[in-house]
Amino acid sequence: MRIAILQMIAVPGDVAANLRQIEAAAEKAAAGGAALLITPELATTGYGAGDVIRDLAETAEGPQVQALTAIARKHGLALVAGFAERDGEEVFNSLVMVEASETPSIYRKTHLYGDYERALFTPGEADSALRAFKGLKLGFLICYDVEFPENVRRLARAGADVVLVPTALPEGSFARFIATRVVPVRAFENQVFVVYADHGGGDANFSYAGLSRAIGPDGQSLAASDTDTAELLFADIDPGAFDESRRANTYLADLRPL
Amino acid sequence: MRIAILQMIAVPGDVAANLRQIEAAAEKAAAGGAALLITPELATTGYGAGDVIRDLAETAEGPQVQALTAIARKHGLALVAGFAERDGEEVFNSLVMVEASETPSIYRKTHLYGDYERALFTPGEADSALRAFKGLKLGFLICYDVEFPENVRRLARAGADVVLVPTALPEGSFARFIATRVVPVRAFENQVFVVYADHGGGDANFSYAGLSRAIGPDGQSLAASDTDTAELLFADIDPGAFDESRRANTYLADLRPL
Repeated sequence: MRIAILQMIAVPGDVAANLRQIEAAAEKAAAGGAALLITPELATTGYGAGDVIRDLAETAEGPQVQALTAIARKHGLALVAGFAERDGEEVFNSLVMVEASETPSIYRKTHLYGDYERALFTPGEADSALRAFKGLKLGFLICYDVEFPENVRRLARAGADVVLVPTALPEGSFARFIATRVVPVRAFENQVFVVYADHGGGDANFSYAGLSRAIGPDGQSLAASDTDTAELLFADIDPGAFDESRRANTYLADLRPL
Repeated sequence: MRIAILQMIAVPGDVAANLRQIEAAAEKAAAGGAALLITPELATTGYGAGDVIRDLAETAEGPQVQALTAIARKHGLALVAGFAERDGEEVFNSLVMVEASETPSIYRKTHLYGDYERALFTPGEADSALRAFKGLKLGFLICYDVEFPENVRRLARAGADVVLVPTALPEGSFARFIATRVVPVRAFENQVFVVYADHGGGDANFSYAGLSRAIGPDGQSLAASDTDTAELLFADIDPGAFDESRRANTYLADLRPL
């Protein structure tokens, strides 16, 4: 199963412009044989747009999810995108997975990072729901969630083959360590694939590290950006190619009661 | 607090020879200003000595622990060493920490690796006991234990500053990933020091990867072997040097109920 990763330079607060970017990437992703395109955290609003994100928040039935579904239908692939989800008075930092004719799946970020996010969003509750897709089970996390081993472990123990992670990783002293060390170790210690789709560029509030990547169960990159520019990456997700790693690294079977 | 790490080429089944090696390293470690010397998993018997390990197993009050205590007393440092611990009919893959005049601390490996270890040893039960030393709290794991994020997390949540890990990491496709990726991520995701002391060389059963190292809370090496030969490494454990990392990476405070 081929996956495409959009490392995106979003326009803060301009949903229409960001949907156009996502559609352009979906067209290229489909042309490149991808069955699924993943975009970053808060892809439709931009991550650093600030308070306007709350004004742009929509329900899971709203126009943004409808527009994403239309893109998925038009280009014949599945789409995972971060968006601000309104539910009554609360706003969640969510992602949606849409396909042409399936009900959208929603995941709400459980581990909000820093004062910026905590001022905007309500944290979600731990969620191990998996989505079946092309013979694989997909689990979802957002950004800071994946830095906690407990979250990836929970999905792996629920049976996930692939963990999809829209992110917004700010540049800084620890960004490269997180993308190139923590994310690969999450894949290895659970013998799952991890796909990490970041923003590039910057906005009034943040500069982003880029460094998007797809990691196999052996901890090695299947595709990786080494820049913070806009890129479309492709990775083939083939669990059958990692039998040696699964035989040698039997962490899920060997984990004892703690 | 300065720590010395003995990357050791043990003589399989020859406890006297291995104690002589440990004593020679203790002398050099003390001369180099170390307050503590850590040696590998099953340092006194050798890791790959096979069934004879069960014959050489001793209680925590036995001659091996007494000899280690005498070495610690003579050279004025603390000593952490792996040994086979007999308790009635059971044999554990244990470590002991000895000082001149303190009661020895024992830790029993909870996650045995592979058929070789499971044939020799009984697994220990999860143990979060910490040992106060020079103003720090030390936690203990052995080898495969550290590859499970749950074990390091448990010690960090109990208050550990430093996790000491005697190991026997066999050469193979995944050894370098474990030493240079998994071990540093364990330090970073818990904001603790991790000290990983491996065997070098080989015996009839295994070749060892070496790659011993001490990692700071920022995930970077304080000292690291890039070989599988005998080496004595020194690392200074100074929690005050990692304030920036602790401020930026607040995983223990931010972890939510799962």
